[in-house]
Amino acid sequence: MNIITHRVEALRAWMRENGLSAYIIPSTDPHMGEYVPDHWKTREWITGFNGSAGTAVVTLTRAALWTDSRYWLAAEEQTAGTPFEVIRCSRNVATAQEIVEWIRPLPQPLPREGGELAGAQWVIGIDGWCVDQDYAASLETAAAKAGFTLRTDVEPCETLWTQRPQLPLSTIELHPLSLAGRTVAEKLADTRAAIQKNGADALLVCQLDEIAWLLNLRGKDVHCTPVFISYLVVRREDAILYVHPSQVTPEVGAYLQENHILQRPYEAIGNDLGAGIAGVQVLQYAPSATNKALAAAISGNEHISFREAPSPIPPLRAIKNPIEIEGFREAMLRDGVAMVKFLRYLSETAGLTEITADQKLTGLRAEQPGFRDISFDTIAGYGAHGAIVHYEATPATDIPLEPHGLLLLDSGAQYDCGTTDITRTIPLGPLTDEERRDYTLVLKGHIRLATAVFPEGTTGTQLDVLARYAMWQEHKNYGHGTGHGVGSYLSVHEGPHQFRMNHVPAPLQAGMTVTIEPGIYIAGSHGVRIENTMLITDSPPALSGVPLSFKEGTVTTDSQDAHSSAANSPSLKERGQGGESWLRLEPLTLCPIATEPIIREMLFPDEIDYLNRYHARVREALLPRLDDDADRQWLIAHTAPL
Amino acid sequence: MNIITHRVEALRAWMRENGLSAYIIPSTDPHMGEYVPDHWKTREWITGFNGSAGTAVVTLTRAALWTDSRYWLAAEEQTAGTPFEVIRCSRNVATAQEIVEWIRPLPQPLPREGGELAGAQWVIGIDGWCVDQDYAASLETAAAKAGFTLRTDVEPCETLWTQRPQLPLSTIELHPLSLAGRTVAEKLADTRAAIQKNGADALLVCQLDEIAWLLNLRGKDVHCTPVFISYLVVRREDAILYVHPSQVTPEVGAYLQENHILQRPYEAIGNDLGAGIAGVQVLQYAPSATNKALAAAISGNEHISFREAPSPIPPLRAIKNPIEIEGFREAMLRDGVAMVKFLRYLSETAGLTEITADQKLTGLRAEQPGFRDISFDTIAGYGAHGAIVHYEATPATDIPLEPHGLLLLDSGAQYDCGTTDITRTIPLGPLTDEERRDYTLVLKGHIRLATAVFPEGTTGTQLDVLARYAMWQEHKNYGHGTGHGVGSYLSVHEGPHQFRMNHVPAPLQAGMTVTIEPGIYIAGSHGVRIENTMLITDSPPALSGVPLSFKEGTVTTDSQDAHSSAANSPSLKERGQGGESWLRLEPLTLCPIATEPIIREMLFPDEIDYLNRYHARVREALLPRLDDDADRQWLIAHTAPL
Repeated sequence: MNIITHRVEALRAWMRENGLSAYIIPSTDPHMGEYVPDHWKTREWITGFNGSAGTAVVTLTRAALWTDSRYWLAAEEQTAGTPFEVIRCSRNVATAQEIVEWIRPLPQPLPREGGELAGAQWVIGIDGWCVDQDYAASLETAAAKAGFTLRTDVEPCETLWTQRPQLPLSTIELHPLSLAGRTVAEKLADTRAAIQKNGADALLVCQLDEIAWLLNLRGKDVHCTPVFISYLVVRREDAILYVHPSQVTPEVGAYLQENHILQRPYEAIGNDLGAGIAGVQVLQYAPSATNKALAAAISGNEHISFREAPSPIPPLRAIKNPIEIEGFREAMLRDGVAMVKFLRYLSETAGLTEITADQKLTGLRAEQPGFRDISFDTIAGYGAHGAIVHYEATPATDIPLEPHGLLLLDSGAQYDCGTTDITRTIPLGPLTDEERRDYTLVLKGHIRLATAVFPEGTTGTQLDVLARYAMWQEHKNYGHGTGHGVGSYLSVHEGPHQFRMNHVPAPLQAGMTVTIEPGIYIAGSHGVRIENTMLITDSPPALSGVPLSFKEGTVTTDSQDAHSSAANSPSLKERGQGGESWLRLEPLTLCPIATEPIIREMLFPDEIDYLNRYHARVREALLPRLDDDADRQWLIAHTAPL
Repeated sequence: MNIITHRVEALRAWMRENGLSAYIIPSTDPHMGEYVPDHWKTREWITGFNGSAGTAVVTLTRAALWTDSRYWLAAEEQTAGTPFEVIRCSRNVATAQEIVEWIRPLPQPLPREGGELAGAQWVIGIDGWCVDQDYAASLETAAAKAGFTLRTDVEPCETLWTQRPQLPLSTIELHPLSLAGRTVAEKLADTRAAIQKNGADALLVCQLDEIAWLLNLRGKDVHCTPVFISYLVVRREDAILYVHPSQVTPEVGAYLQENHILQRPYEAIGNDLGAGIAGVQVLQYAPSATNKALAAAISGNEHISFREAPSPIPPLRAIKNPIEIEGFREAMLRDGVAMVKFLRYLSETAGLTEITADQKLTGLRAEQPGFRDISFDTIAGYGAHGAIVHYEATPATDIPLEPHGLLLLDSGAQYDCGTTDITRTIPLGPLTDEERRDYTLVLKGHIRLATAVFPEGTTGTQLDVLARYAMWQEHKNYGHGTGHGVGSYLSVHEGPHQFRMNHVPAPLQAGMTVTIEPGIYIAGSHGVRIENTMLITDSPPALSGVPLSFKEGTVTTDSQDAHSSAANSPSLKERGQGGESWLRLEPLTLCPIATEPIIREMLFPDEIDYLNRYHARVREALLPRLDDDADRQWLIAHTAPL
């Protein structure tokens, strides 16, 4: 009997003792962030499967793991010989409906007996601390329809997981105003104004990157993300930070006091919300980002009424202030220097592998001032590995880089002044025609979106097609979004805006960062992605220079169709009664884009022009930062006009 | 005292008699269609304002007319000297909130006295037959909040409007299967299957173009639209058509009987729904397309339960069957012949005006076989009139066409086999640089969207930007949608799909028709719009020929972002696990696009190529249909490659 089977049997014994017929273990933690600290990797502990997404369910006789297509093969391999069957699902979370239907032993809904459930075999459990309120509510509904009850006040791993990793308790650091650009007081005032519109007098914040942004503090508790484990309650006049006292240095303690931020122990949040907090009458929280345990504590407290609403913080945080924008520019210079040194090294060095190349790049980044960490796990996919969108080289998969084909390299860093995210697809030698063609199609898409000018109110969904138009002509596409916001020395993925095909209503606004990263992935052959991080700006940047003369005075009208008298009303953004303000995109990332793979005849004149202007800008920005003449020569050669 | 003041005073006398403090007159009729028969133009009768959109409200002391920017000036002119003040609004319907706030004489909500309203002065009236259920519900809510009640069972015009036009009672005609392509039985079966998904056993249809489509019947009761005034109730085994008996010929009567469609008098619908109809237990209706009087009759009938849901007919109707598509192709040939003859005539004839040019074009269309009517009022806007998106020349505004500048001509016809909608912007002589530049920008947008290839599931909102990208570079835009579906010898505007900036979730599907009609409008100077009607198709048409080699086997994955481990789930349409099917657009419209205004250097090579291929196709299609050699020579000259 292997270790996983032992664990499942121990869980079942605990379930029998506690009257549960099924237990659900999701991949999330109490803070609903992108990366989960080891302490909360219960789904990996129970299944042995180490992918980032998946849902495990154990009944007294069966066990299943749902995961999405990225992980189908890995999940099969890693759970072989265990009680888990892998269920392939199309989303990265199993739906409540899927889970309940799998658990339910009978094809028809079970009759309830006089409104009471028949017995313990009809109870499903899940740890309320590690599931968000939205998902828990959908589970409750699906369970009730099938005649089950859902318990969220159970947590077997606390006792069963004997070698459980400790919570990381890193020292919290100040993020100075010289980098943050806005004081805690200003940010709290903005936040309070936003929740007051909903009639709330307090806000519960569970997401760690929201707390870090709001308080101008950073930590090291989470992989690739400079945050610390905590909760925050914002009140009218002050705020309460729930945090492990050992993480708070005297300096940070004084800073908190200065800013009217009280400290309470991390573990006290549940009891405090259940018992009531002075001055908290109407508490707002985001049901998709708040764990069920806290939501239950709030709804069980008759002295607190609550407002469920999306967090006001992401829209505030998304618009970078001038200091943060300057920080991004500096971070991009540092990152560009590291990238240029790496690209030259790569071009001159034989015998590298995916992993040693990544190590070299990380080492070069670490030499840069203010380097703190990488911002996500590097994707260094050579050849066919480039077609695996979520590839992360391991010793078992690592392959040597050969002098032909494409290396897809998606990487980024955390600097004190900003976060970077860049993908380059690097030719290591001769390429096939298909590789060159796909490279050129991706580049065309990248440039078409990068040159967009658009009126205020435009969403990323409206612009997304510009990155896909060229490759769609050849019936090629990619299954991921085209771009996301990037944090300011924070999470590399930030909302609320995105470039993607799905409807995302958040409009693009000046001051937002956003990536452009179209790709083409040919299974078993190669992958291409070209990504820059951009700044949305309302002043025409010199780079993207409008090629045609600039005219004001356009008059538009507000109608359904050009000659329709239909009664539908026009939208504000389609009215544009003159006076519209216009936005465009400015590349922040500074690194040459390889021109060797380009099939020149496939580029339109304005695309060549953009690429040449971008390279001129990169050369001008990075040359003064390079002291090694070989690096300088490499940069000059690789930013030559096409 | 003018005639309008007389009418308002008569209305007020009636309001006093009936205890009303305000009366609302919208522009809609009982069937919520695009064009309103004269009989129901009560808003025009009470205000004197003849625009298509506007909301009139009369209180005992004041009167107001809300209208949108298209009509601000005309409304001011036409209501001068009457009791009406014009209120400029941004939508083409005043919101319930706006109306109630204007009516309410006090700044604060009125206190209610013991739950009862104080008196007659707090009652607002509206004719329930001429307002849809959605709008009536919003009025009820807004009125109740302000302490008013809303009565919808009042209709003063019946008695006050002495010279009221009769209802048109045209003879109903069969739309033969050889043109409709699907039998009534098949369409009814599709419709029943759709409503059964909602648990409904019957469907109420109020929209005239839905009834005409479903029954394969046509009429002449509504301007530019071949429909007849009626209601329809679809039951499990049959249907009931509420129609004026005088409109039903013996042939149509026999056809109805054959198809199990019972006849009832038009006026009986209200009583029937109030009293109950055999076999109708669960009745579905669309609240945005059903008048309040019928919705009230249904909800007042305890034997009928109801389902409010969008009509199932527009999605069924939007996908044209092969016979309908053939009909469109034939209609486009006829319309192309008329357009070519007109364009040659225009180029050779001095002394025309906007109106006489339109008359000539309509005359040439009327010479075509199967011509029934125009499909909307022609927009023939010369020079500065071209910048008025909803311009319709009247004797008062008509101007001579001079041998310079641009004529914007948006027109269409109803043929027995299909409906057309085409805009050409025609150079009448020398042009300014700005005119040529704007023309070229609009053409670039038209072509970029026309050449789009896209995966199934894509919406018009996603593609809309392709038509705007080029002009957005110059901070120019247009305030209308980019395209709409076109009926098959039916309404020229059909949903549910559109090209527009606002989020429209309906995906584009093979078999749909859709227009592409970007524009630029420079007030006081000129307007440009270039419109073709397109067919969405999944087979690569010869015309749009994919310029690059065609590759299958693209592999995409399903993730939030390229390297995200976030828990958001991918959409089906972004997953595209191979096997995606691809759509493109094929132009149905056959008519040269003027090349003289083009600034050639602004076109990309693929744009020139598309235009040349389009012109080759137009030439090939129309030449065999032209018997006048001068027309043939004109066509050959105007379809020469650029």
